[in-house]
Amino acid sequence: MSFQKLDDLGRKLESLEHALSILGADEATHMAVGGGEKRAEAMANLAGMYHAQATAPQIADWIEAARPETEDQTLALAEFRRQYINATCLPTEFVERRTAATMRSEQLWRELRPRGDWDSFLPALEGVVALVREEAQLRADALGLAPYDALMDQYDPGNRTADLDPVFADLKNFLTGFVPQALDAQEARLARRPRKPLNGPYPIDRQRELGLAAMRAVGFDFTHGSLAVSHHPFCGGVPTDVRMTTRYRTDEFLSALMGVLHETGHALYEQGLPKAWSHWPLGKARGMGIHESQSLFVEMQLARSPEFWEFALPLVHLHLGEDAIPGWQTADILSEVNFVQRGYIRVDADEVTYPLHVILRYELEQDLVAGKLEASQIPEAWDAKMTDYLGISTINDPKDGPMQDVHWPGGAFGYFPSYTLGAMIAAQQWAALEQAQPNLRADIARGDFTGVNQWRAEHIWSQGSRWSTPELITKATGQPLNADIFKAHLKARYLA
Amino acid sequence: MSFQKLDDLGRKLESLEHALSILGADEATHMAVGGGEKRAEAMANLAGMYHAQATAPQIADWIEAARPETEDQTLALAEFRRQYINATCLPTEFVERRTAATMRSEQLWRELRPRGDWDSFLPALEGVVALVREEAQLRADALGLAPYDALMDQYDPGNRTADLDPVFADLKNFLTGFVPQALDAQEARLARRPRKPLNGPYPIDRQRELGLAAMRAVGFDFTHGSLAVSHHPFCGGVPTDVRMTTRYRTDEFLSALMGVLHETGHALYEQGLPKAWSHWPLGKARGMGIHESQSLFVEMQLARSPEFWEFALPLVHLHLGEDAIPGWQTADILSEVNFVQRGYIRVDADEVTYPLHVILRYELEQDLVAGKLEASQIPEAWDAKMTDYLGISTINDPKDGPMQDVHWPGGAFGYFPSYTLGAMIAAQQWAALEQAQPNLRADIARGDFTGVNQWRAEHIWSQGSRWSTPELITKATGQPLNADIFKAHLKARYLA
Repeated sequence: MSFQKLDDLGRKLESLEHALSILGADEATHMAVGGGEKRAEAMANLAGMYHAQATAPQIADWIEAARPETEDQTLALAEFRRQYINATCLPTEFVERRTAATMRSEQLWRELRPRGDWDSFLPALEGVVALVREEAQLRADALGLAPYDALMDQYDPGNRTADLDPVFADLKNFLTGFVPQALDAQEARLARRPRKPLNGPYPIDRQRELGLAAMRAVGFDFTHGSLAVSHHPFCGGVPTDVRMTTRYRTDEFLSALMGVLHETGHALYEQGLPKAWSHWPLGKARGMGIHESQSLFVEMQLARSPEFWEFALPLVHLHLGEDAIPGWQTADILSEVNFVQRGYIRVDADEVTYPLHVILRYELEQDLVAGKLEASQIPEAWDAKMTDYLGISTINDPKDGPMQDVHWPGGAFGYFPSYTLGAMIAAQQWAALEQAQPNLRADIARGDFTGVNQWRAEHIWSQGSRWSTPELITKATGQPLNADIFKAHLKARYLA
Repeated sequence: MSFQKLDDLGRKLESLEHALSILGADEATHMAVGGGEKRAEAMANLAGMYHAQATAPQIADWIEAARPETEDQTLALAEFRRQYINATCLPTEFVERRTAATMRSEQLWRELRPRGDWDSFLPALEGVVALVREEAQLRADALGLAPYDALMDQYDPGNRTADLDPVFADLKNFLTGFVPQALDAQEARLARRPRKPLNGPYPIDRQRELGLAAMRAVGFDFTHGSLAVSHHPFCGGVPTDVRMTTRYRTDEFLSALMGVLHETGHALYEQGLPKAWSHWPLGKARGMGIHESQSLFVEMQLARSPEFWEFALPLVHLHLGEDAIPGWQTADILSEVNFVQRGYIRVDADEVTYPLHVILRYELEQDLVAGKLEASQIPEAWDAKMTDYLGISTINDPKDGPMQDVHWPGGAFGYFPSYTLGAMIAAQQWAALEQAQPNLRADIARGDFTGVNQWRAEHIWSQGSRWSTPELITKATGQPLNADIFKAHLKARYLA
């Protein structure tokens, strides 16, 4: 009876989520420019209805009284309870205060970032940091966790600094030594085999066809999704109708193609979630780290491997023409897609340097939440770590330093580690897969992704939110998060 | 205070409507084929939330207690009350029964219509007719109207058989004589100037550009709307983001272009509604007859006139190429778009014969609601009238006879008259406009639609739902619905 009430509620919430997801995707792809104000009003009101229904006090009683009859129901109820606690642990008064402050701060950031005006932005960020400390404590009290763990738990349930700290420290130490080695190896490789020029322009309609062919090949289900264009690529929509986007430039085609493959990784996860539980938290994607592991599995593990390009190079010729990349072979493509370069900007970083950008933020935001660091001290602390980890200074360039990401202005603390967690999980899945399927690389070289997808469907996608993030890693790959696997992957790819 | 409560409620309802409108448009244009089931579930749940919020009992108290302070508020409250009564006058038990029956009947109709299986369909239609009689009586009791008037009032508030019967009878008598005259005149014209061949194929992207140019010319605001493709053309979305669609064939271009112009007429109305009242019934389009008058104003009055084609013929050459319609002049286009032909199918009918299709249905459905006619008698009654009005028989062809429309299977009785009402209002608006703006035809020939749109914005669009349909006709055109104007329009166009 109570279980049925939760089930009914879930269907209503799913419908509101459906509307919000499709309206969000539509806004980025097909909305008329003058439609934004009413769209924002509609989405805010729908989100309000969602929140009111999802946090109604009687739900606590339903959860208490529910008597699950199967293991699935037991897990579903536990995840429902967890999400209900997360959704209700902040007083309404606090949520309103925080929402107003982060909205203002994010708007201010958008205005000030282009000119790198840190000083004007600082007061707003100080306000956000104060609220985040308050929020972390409120969540910590409700969940019985340490404050920063309570923040991370929103994005990847089960993530704990006690587990991540040593793994990230290990990885950081490895990478500070590895980056120069990888750069040296790259220089030597390029001396032997110089980078080849592109032969654009690449018409958008042909790039689109190439992207669609790549999506289809790696398993995207076009009866439950589509590809459009938007300024910022994303994977949105709903599992039965995944809305992927990309953006095109005509002077080169690899950024759009790799972006499409990244988003396809997200899309496959959504399309593979357990349908019978789609209206329960249990049936939804586990969290940000696991989601990112699925996109990075496709983008980094699959689509930056030599075997993938054995299959994909003819596809490029087919869709872009024989002269699109004249004389290029697999090794030339690999040089491009696996190019390593130290840089300021996280989102532009390659696979090797990216984790250092993340670990820097992970360390800083722990100190910010703990009160060991103040917002005013960020630029110096940021610069010290950038210099230490990547050997580059941003002290005179806040725009491309601590002002580069939307996360902190928007109050999203505890999110950054999920990116590198995702990269490590992706490598760990690949290793497990390769052990389970000895023909893996040969299959990929033939463009056969059936085995890859079956394994992931079984071990990841169909699991929804049955397990915490660390539990899911262990169940899927046979061991807890293990930095050695990611390190071995980097060595094999970049020092060979 | 109470007024404010209604205002707040209006904003929530507007947001749900926004979601439903955009989800509906998205479904027809961009949804993946496998997304339909969840989309239907989401829309049904959102519609349920809308209904629950729009019919809550406390609203009656708010309406009662509201003290409007301006004329606008007085009109807004009156329209709110009218819609609340319309939305709450049917018992929930009845609505559920009717919804289930009409959904089944409509599904059955979709299945049986292709093979014209009237006998298998009849029991379902009999059930619908019984429910419609019950509904008409319930509405009649709540509104203090005659049963059929109460049904019409949903679509065009103020429509009464007492007013329409003589007008439609007059029109019918005129048309039964006029159709043969128009056909004779057409034959004579075509003998002098034979129809010219088309020179397709017409590529879809060029047709799209032509359609966009025509939309822009007649005043469509592309900052608040767009054009896409769907199987059945429609004008949906919301006033700040109107979603228009068309469909293309490549052997000819006029059907898509005239369809685009028709939908643009609907779109201009939506875009011109009073923005400050967009969350009140007052700020919404008046009804189906007025809406159709706006689409037919553009499609029939404007875009089938010689002056329009003086302006538009070069546009065709510009977008489709100089050889697209070799040697065609304005008179040749007019022969095509104003071609008259007796036929079975209402939606394929031309401007001259269309009203006879509608009047036939108007007469039959009055008798059905009144119990003077049973569903089983429809085929014979239909055939008698078709033979009488248009001289063609459908007795052996129910598919193209009484099974051709979705309205009756779906339970929509009282809707048909709005189509012809719209055509007559459109002609009456044109006459009023021509009196107010002596340069009207010259302006149109130059592609200047400013005056046309200013007049319509002032007299129709900005009026929203301030007045009943007959009131709006009189206020806008200076006189009540007058069949003579429509008759004069037909004579001028088809006997000249």
